[in-house]
Amino acid sequence: MDSGQIEAQINEFELLQSGGMYQDDFLLTWDRSEDEIAAVFEVAEILQKMRQNNISSKAFDSGLAVSLFRDNSTRTRFSFSSAANLLGLSIQDLDEGKSQIAHGETVRETATMVSFMADVIGIRDDMYIGKGNAYMREVSEAVKQGHGSGLLEQRPTIVNLQCDIDHPTQSMADALHLIQHYGGISNLRGKKIAMSWAYSPSYGKPLSVPQGIVGLMTRFGMDVVLCHPEGYGIMPEVEEIAKRNAQACGGSFTKTDSMSGAFEDADIVYPKSWAPFRAMEQRTELYDRNDMNGITMLEKDLLAQNARFKNWQCTEELMGRTKNKNALYMHCLPADITGVSCKLGEVEASVFDRYRDPLYKEASFKPYVIAAMIFLAQFPNPAEKLLQLLTRGKRRIF
Amino acid sequence: MDSGQIEAQINEFELLQSGGMYQDDFLLTWDRSEDEIAAVFEVAEILQKMRQNNISSKAFDSGLAVSLFRDNSTRTRFSFSSAANLLGLSIQDLDEGKSQIAHGETVRETATMVSFMADVIGIRDDMYIGKGNAYMREVSEAVKQGHGSGLLEQRPTIVNLQCDIDHPTQSMADALHLIQHYGGISNLRGKKIAMSWAYSPSYGKPLSVPQGIVGLMTRFGMDVVLCHPEGYGIMPEVEEIAKRNAQACGGSFTKTDSMSGAFEDADIVYPKSWAPFRAMEQRTELYDRNDMNGITMLEKDLLAQNARFKNWQCTEELMGRTKNKNALYMHCLPADITGVSCKLGEVEASVFDRYRDPLYKEASFKPYVIAAMIFLAQFPNPAEKLLQLLTRGKRRIF
Amino acid sequence: MDSGQIEAQINEFELLQSGGMYQDDFLLTWDRSEDEIAAVFEVAEILQKMRQNNISSKAFDSGLAVSLFRDNSTRTRFSFSSAANLLGLSIQDLDEGKSQIAHGETVRETATMVSFMADVIGIRDDMYIGKGNAYMREVSEAVKQGHGSGLLEQRPTIVNLQCDIDHPTQSMADALHLIQHYGGISNLRGKKIAMSWAYSPSYGKPLSVPQGIVGLMTRFGMDVVLCHPEGYGIMPEVEEIAKRNAQACGGSFTKTDSMSGAFEDADIVYPKSWAPFRAMEQRTELYDRNDMNGITMLEKDLLAQNARFKNWQCTEELMGRTKNKNALYMHCLPADITGVSCKLGEVEASVFDRYRDPLYKEASFKPYVIAAMIFLAQFPNPAEKLLQLLTRGKRRIF
Repeated sequence: MDSGQIEAQINEFELLQSGGMYQDDFLLTWDRSEDEIAAVFEVAEILQKMRQNNISSKAFDSGLAVSLFRDNSTRTRFSFSSAANLLGLSIQDLDEGKSQIAHGETVRETATMVSFMADVIGIRDDMYIGKGNAYMREVSEAVKQGHGSGLLEQRPTIVNLQCDIDHPTQSMADALHLIQHYGGISNLRGKKIAMSWAYSPSYGKPLSVPQGIVGLMTRFGMDVVLCHPEGYGIMPEVEEIAKRNAQACGGSFTKTDSMSGAFEDADIVYPKSWAPFRAMEQRTELYDRNDMNGITMLEKDLLAQNARFKNWQCTEELMGRTKNKNALYMHCLPADITGVSCKLGEVEASVFDRYRDPLYKEASFKPYVIAAMIFLAQFPNPAEKLLQLLTRGKRRIF
Repeated sequence: MDSGQIEAQINEFELLQSGGMYQDDFLLTWDRSEDEIAAVFEVAEILQKMRQNNISSKAFDSGLAVSLFRDNSTRTRFSFSSAANLLGLSIQDLDEGKSQIAHGETVRETATMVSFMADVIGIRDDMYIGKGNAYMREVSEAVKQGHGSGLLEQRPTIVNLQCDIDHPTQSMADALHLIQHYGGISNLRGKKIAMSWAYSPSYGKPLSVPQGIVGLMTRFGMDVVLCHPEGYGIMPEVEEIAKRNAQACGGSFTKTDSMSGAFEDADIVYPKSWAPFRAMEQRTELYDRNDMNGITMLEKDLLAQNARFKNWQCTEELMGRTKNKNALYMHCLPADITGVSCKLGEVEASVFDRYRDPLYKEASFKPYVIAAMIFLAQFPNPAEKLLQLLTRGKRRIF
Repeated sequence: MDSGQIEAQINEFELLQSGGMYQDDFLLTWDRSEDEIAAVFEVAEILQKMRQNNISSKAFDSGLAVSLFRDNSTRTRFSFSSAANLLGLSIQDLDEGKSQIAHGETVRETATMVSFMADVIGIRDDMYIGKGNAYMREVSEAVKQGHGSGLLEQRPTIVNLQCDIDHPTQSMADALHLIQHYGGISNLRGKKIAMSWAYSPSYGKPLSVPQGIVGLMTRFGMDVVLCHPEGYGIMPEVEEIAKRNAQACGGSFTKTDSMSGAFEDADIVYPKSWAPFRAMEQRTELYDRNDMNGITMLEKDLLAQNARFKNWQCTEELMGRTKNKNALYMHCLPADITGVSCKLGEVEASVFDRYRDPLYKEASFKPYVIAAMIFLAQFPNPAEKLLQLLTRGKRRIF
């Protein structure tokens, strides 16, 4: 590829209205306009092409990327780290074990203290309903205020690396995978995607993935089916968003409790375990009251409830019902693979194995998506900046 | 601002005799001459102005900044990290959990092993009286010897990030805050600052802040009042230094056990809890003898002793006694705020809230102060180097 | 030194056939040809001279260096970190506490997930016989496959930072120390080196150092003596390699159970404790069966066995038997020093103290050796690339 193709894509990207992202955060995909969503995909692809062509996209000569993970995560940690490194930022972990983080003014204080030289703050906080996204907004308010009053010389961008409501870096990477798979965002129109619950021997998996998927995929004119056993509902607010999206964008959002129905003629399937929203809400209340006995009982109930749906597995048989028996299988990884990572899980080993390469491809977009989110928030004229980086022609590897 | 103003400040800075800092460490403020102290402020301000004007001050293309924290600290960790990053150095933590550090030849060995490509070592070791600063000097000796004998290709600078005696990066950041607040170092002359003990429900807070403050502020011709209940004395050696400083620099150093007296007509107040020096000395001996029973009893006694001084709080009433009822309130953060972070603490919430922005401003100088300390130790002709960086005109953000 | 000398060494290095290292890993020294081994020494020296002359060897503008340590290690961690930093890569730790790592497809998945922007993966996994090197090969296969199928945009180099079989970065640094000490690789011919077991109060030290030493030093025409009490044998496969090397390279490989015999007329001595290979094999099996009782009994037996050889200490008397009473004493550090780090250990304090500077010099080569391994694996024409870096003339310190 010569740089002409990259330049062409930059010119294409420039037509999008993405100015609303400048000096703002990326907290929920449905906070962002169509053009802004499209802009993330374009910039992610441009950054990827630059790297593939050994062109440095290091836009920062110095600066910190603060990572705040309330939960362990190798994959997200590496994605964030890779994105920061690609742009020239250095990771500094804000380890909660090392620094207790509370709410209100304490959040404001800590957020300010770590932000004096921070250009981005990546936060993963997905454990408790009503907490994670709220916490991100508190941090956002704090740095906005700090920048407004001159305490901070720059406005750090908050990137939601997974919260109780959405998992935008995941769903956007998933969508970019689909865009490249189908050869363009417009080709997603009319495709049927089944976001289905699947059995897992563990309980309490976050809701942010199914919520993120139905909240985002309904924006591309897709036929989005949310499928789960009774009692495994997701946040009602997110369902509302999915409905509104579908109406606005010419696709559909439907629900079913039949996995085989959801898979019927599907172009894409995304079978994955999650915990019932109501149970997670209850768990949050129990933790708030420090009712450990209640927690133990809830866990027992949830495992028993899960066990009633052991047949919710993505089998070869189910895959055979999909479009041309050949739907694209998706997962945020790691998956619970029957006979591999557990006795009985979300997916049959032969299905998973067949899709291993596409699954890893799907995951590979996340660093670029995160980098694009940062880039769009940091530069008032991102197209011009990308062009300048291209013209600079600095090699990534000398 | 155009770069002319920065150039002007560099020229001003060049008049100072700061050559004694080259290839040396920053361990105690009273080890450094007036000019050297002033040089740190000047370089910190120059680096800040460069960053504010998007001019890169990355003087290192590669190199490690080793961080050795014997105590957890988000703020100091981020300050050191930010300073290192600003100059182009990468942080490598020397985690004590991962590598036991002892004394004598073992210190020499570890210090050498981590220094082959290290340009700076930041150490925080404030737990035991007689240990922290002594340890830093051992590390300093080790790297000096290593560099002298050719084992190390460069001489890493040791920066004291808090020890049992002094907290120079804190007190220097505090002083720079005052300099900017009052419009110049000469304007500090004659200002009254009350470094006062205050009540906290926790015990055993380090002495390095009050010691650092009286050891440094007495050098600017200020009227420094050290104020604490009987039995809460600081290191006698540091009091001696404060006295000598005051005599030499034309200010005063006085002591009182009346908080309201100390606040009377004060320009600046710094109310903060600390543990009695004698008790900390005793604690160190108990730990040395591994007398855990003794430790428990000492803690109980200290809490009981603290409880006798619950009225030592920075209240609105006390603030009303200060100069124009409007003294500048300072704190190294985090503060024990009554009704916010504890039931009863060092300061009333309304006082703290009123000073939130100046307090965060105060904290914002620390990364620049640390970077200046490193810069002055690493470059034989720092003014020329700053001018070259300015001329290079590399942007921090492309 | 002017850059002409460095250029001369680059030209010399160019004559070596090191192309086999490109896009490959460094897992065992005996996997690599004579020229490839020599190439590592040359590039390490060239990088060192560049750094000593303040010439940047930052060949990467961005990129991650993943560090995976299954065992704590300050020294190796800093060596890897220094090497990565020297070349322009940023460290991202893959913490096992944070991410459980298993085998088979799980290895493939994790290896891929962390490698999207990784240029090197350094692994230390020396705990269990039959596991460490095997694990590295699994990771290597995974990234090779990932790169081959286009999932990874680059092929990360795996560097063995110590495994159950070999410790190539240690033995190569040791060899470079000898090369510089004796003024050239050809001067090692005919030198007698005694790799001897020595007493330590701890049990279970890894075999990778003695194995690495006899596996590598037999390639330089040296007379390599492996010396240990009966029952402390190393891996038979490595002994075979040492024998074959000696035959092919014109030196010798002999074994003895007499420490004084081994030291007799030795040019170099390397006295160091290790655990018997058979016992380590047994320990691995016990862990596999989770037989903690068996482990406890084995440990007891091994300590008792060690205690029978307390006189296996590197004493002044033994040093007196070496060539000119002046053999070069080597150790990978940290050593068990009698009366210093333990009551009775591997070496007398006076011997160790006399060799402190050479020992630290020995250790100082490791970052350069690691950087050279990465460099040779990453650039198809490393000599040309070094010349370009030299010509670029970027200063390490501005």
